[in-house]
Amino acid sequence: MSEVIPPRSGRAFRLGKGARLKVIDPQGEQVADLFAAFAGDTAEVMSSGRTFDYLEKIYLSVGDTIYSNRSQPLLTILEDTVGRHDFLLTPCSADTFRIIYGDRDPHRGCLGNLVEALAPYGIGANAIPACFNIFMNVELDGVTGKIAVKPPLSKASGFIVFRAEQDLIIGLTACSAPQSNNYSFKPIEFEILP
Amino acid sequence: MSEVIPPRSGRAFRLGKGARLKVIDPQGEQVADLFAAFAGDTAEVMSSGRTFDYLEKIYLSVGDTIYSNRSQPLLTILEDTVGRHDFLLTPCSADTFRIIYGDRDPHRGCLGNLVEALAPYGIGANAIPACFNIFMNVELDGVTGKIAVKPPLSKASGFIVFRAEQDLIIGLTACSAPQSNNYSFKPIEFEILP
Repeated sequence: MSEVIPPRSGRAFRLGKGARLKVIDPQGEQVADLFAAFAGDTAEVMSSGRTFDYLEKIYLSVGDTIYSNRSQPLLTILEDTVGRHDFLLTPCSADTFRIIYGDRDPHRGCLGNLVEALAPYGIGANAIPACFNIFMNVELDGVTGKIAVKPPLSKASGFIVFRAEQDLIIGLTACSAPQSNNYSFKPIEFEILP
Repeated sequence: MSEVIPPRSGRAFRLGKGARLKVIDPQGEQVADLFAAFAGDTAEVMSSGRTFDYLEKIYLSVGDTIYSNRSQPLLTILEDTVGRHDFLLTPCSADTFRIIYGDRDPHRGCLGNLVEALAPYGIGANAIPACFNIFMNVELDGVTGKIAVKPPLSKASGFIVFRAEQDLIIGLTACSAPQSNNYSFKPIEFEILP
């Protein structure tokens, strides 16, 4: 009963409190940007800064909780066969492709895909912060602070499972940035489990 | 002509395009949370995620530019006698003190101080993301991703100077979190230079 998100596109859906969301990388080395907002008030969204502060770390895996900008738990990771995800960077966008890749007619990126998918829920671009970038592999030098986007560590059928700690609106993409996915755009699969 | 921000409080002010903002730590080991929004549309605010992406690093110093959520340059660092600041964490808040320090009657923190100071400009709590935490010293293990808040590296009279790349609304605090300031609350000084 899983759904496939085609390459370089996105989806949005409700995830009830207590339900589980499984996100699968069917072919391997593909990133999925995950956005989450509290359904009761969509101005309450995921916050990397709050989460880093409370967890005292920037890499999340099993047992870790993503907090909102109002310090409520939104999602907890229950299973994770990959173990490396990014929570530092914002979704790729037309600006990303213009500035980083020099594209003159840039793709709208994950940001554009999220904005379109989240519009029916009244969530606009300004509300979309750094997302939880599932399977994204950002190497970091703790001394210099330099970051490098590397191919994801996910193999075919790698997955991660979250539990919703609140009633949520979720946005999810099959990422559009060449570097993030080792220069090959692939689909992402997801499944909502009761 | 500098102004002093008393311990555990905050200020907001306009900074015209091209003007310089000097932030001084008069006694040493004190943090100042800096918020910036584009005055022309205050929904456009500083973005740590965009900045990390474009600079390919998480530590900023001389020559580095802070970008907005719409990928515009907002502020560039011109001088910096300290060299270590944080852009990972959100401003301390009543929730921070409740969750991290276990306070039962928590201080409103930098977030509360920024919300009050920015209210006349129509900027509310939901618009305040991870700030640029001047002089805040967050050590990071690049392998495990663990972070540790350490005493600032700033000595008495240490300072940083920014140039405004747009007409801006600035929020600035003398930080309220014990750990960030080596457990001693001190003032912050600032000066606007033409």
